[in-house]
Amino acid sequence: MKKPVILVTNDDGITAPGIKNLVEVAKEFGTVVVVAPDSPQSGKGHAVTLEDPIRLKKVDVFDGIEAYECSGTPVDCVKLAKFEVLKDKAPDLCVSGINHGSNVSSNILYSGTMSAAMEAAMENIPAIGFSLLDFSWEADFSGAQKIAREMIKHVLENGIPHSNLLNVNVPKLPADEIKGIKICRQADARWVENFQKMDNPRGLDLYWLTGEFINHDQRKDTDVWALSQGYASVVPCHFDLTAERAKEEMTKVFEK
Amino acid sequence: MKKPVILVTNDDGITAPGIKNLVEVAKEFGTVVVVAPDSPQSGKGHAVTLEDPIRLKKVDVFDGIEAYECSGTPVDCVKLAKFEVLKDKAPDLCVSGINHGSNVSSNILYSGTMSAAMEAAMENIPAIGFSLLDFSWEADFSGAQKIAREMIKHVLENGIPHSNLLNVNVPKLPADEIKGIKICRQADARWVENFQKMDNPRGLDLYWLTGEFINHDQRKDTDVWALSQGYASVVPCHFDLTAERAKEEMTKVFEK
Repeated sequence: MKKPVILVTNDDGITAPGIKNLVEVAKEFGTVVVVAPDSPQSGKGHAVTLEDPIRLKKVDVFDGIEAYECSGTPVDCVKLAKFEVLKDKAPDLCVSGINHGSNVSSNILYSGTMSAAMEAAMENIPAIGFSLLDFSWEADFSGAQKIAREMIKHVLENGIPHSNLLNVNVPKLPADEIKGIKICRQADARWVENFQKMDNPRGLDLYWLTGEFINHDQRKDTDVWALSQGYASVVPCHFDLTAERAKEEMTKVFEK
Repeated sequence: MKKPVILVTNDDGITAPGIKNLVEVAKEFGTVVVVAPDSPQSGKGHAVTLEDPIRLKKVDVFDGIEAYECSGTPVDCVKLAKFEVLKDKAPDLCVSGINHGSNVSSNILYSGTMSAAMEAAMENIPAIGFSLLDFSWEADFSGAQKIAREMIKHVLENGIPHSNLLNVNVPKLPADEIKGIKICRQADARWVENFQKMDNPRGLDLYWLTGEFINHDQRKDTDVWALSQGYASVVPCHFDLTAERAKEEMTKVFEK
């Protein structure tokens, strides 16, 4: 049987420990190709580079693995991987991460890690984004590697029916203390911002974005809940944003 | 009755004709505050600026209208508008656009115009993104203004129940040739990329993103379909990306 081709990317940049840990797991399952940003791209969401050329450069970062660094966003990386590096021959799976920090709930929209995975899913490539609830560069990725191994195996064997994209978050716990995997929904949580005004010698009005992530969602099947209980959360996602009930009701009003 | 406060933003930048046309309509309904990017931000998706300070500057661009230009992304503009300019006093409505060019189907994820509107919706502010299917800087916005007038009036009077966000696209037609408004779903269409390799004196591998938007969705209630028939399309959207059917089926597998 032919070995599957697995595309690996992230948003923390190609030198981040998180992607190194993900490459280690992915190569147990197939032929790995890495296309990842040459600089940190956290919070870049689904941005694409339209008004500048994008640079792609072959690098030797992971022992024996074909790898490219890219000056663009995580979504640019996936597009270049599919259409230039792999010459429109879609990989069997795309994995993104392991992100340094949580991507629960609506953070899927801000996250470069998840947007890269979503871009692959939009291209009909099954895709999984992995995030560890630990921002540290020295984080312990052994629990996240264990969960990644289980989910990559599952998706290569079963695909992701009725979805093409999984958002996986892993609690900050030693591998043997993670209770298991919970299939979840996206919690209805959001950021409350607080801009910090910056002193500067030019007297400009400069603000630095800070904020706090608040969850008021009490349901027991959300990603935030599962993580709080010591489980890794898996949210199957789609990218059809149509609000069906609103569509039905507005149709009645406008087709009168 | 107190006049509603309407926040106006876009992604083409504060000097674009599209936002000028939207401000003209919005001020018929309430007190307008503009916070918009100081440079073009097309394709920036839901990006936020995390690793740099953001500059905000009061400007006199629209006659008699409080306006600020911002060095950040469209989503940054909405966050700064809510938490700094309006001091956490939410506006009654946020309108974004009028975008120079289409934002149908999954383009909602790439679009800075729609991401700004979505950010407002996530902050519990009813929001509408407007796009005209004409990239030209000299486009005729009279049809888009007519549709914007109708939708702003509708949302101020009725809100957006079961959703908080409308994606409105207007065909490139004279105002009196637009057949009306259709409430739609997001078409299942996608980009097929084609990277153009750039000659350059440094011999770098530089690529410019180009592509073609392909729709294979034959349903008669999509935004792409409605526009092809001469209607303005309105897609009510949400930002819960949970794929319910996939969640159900995977739950059965993983809770065995």
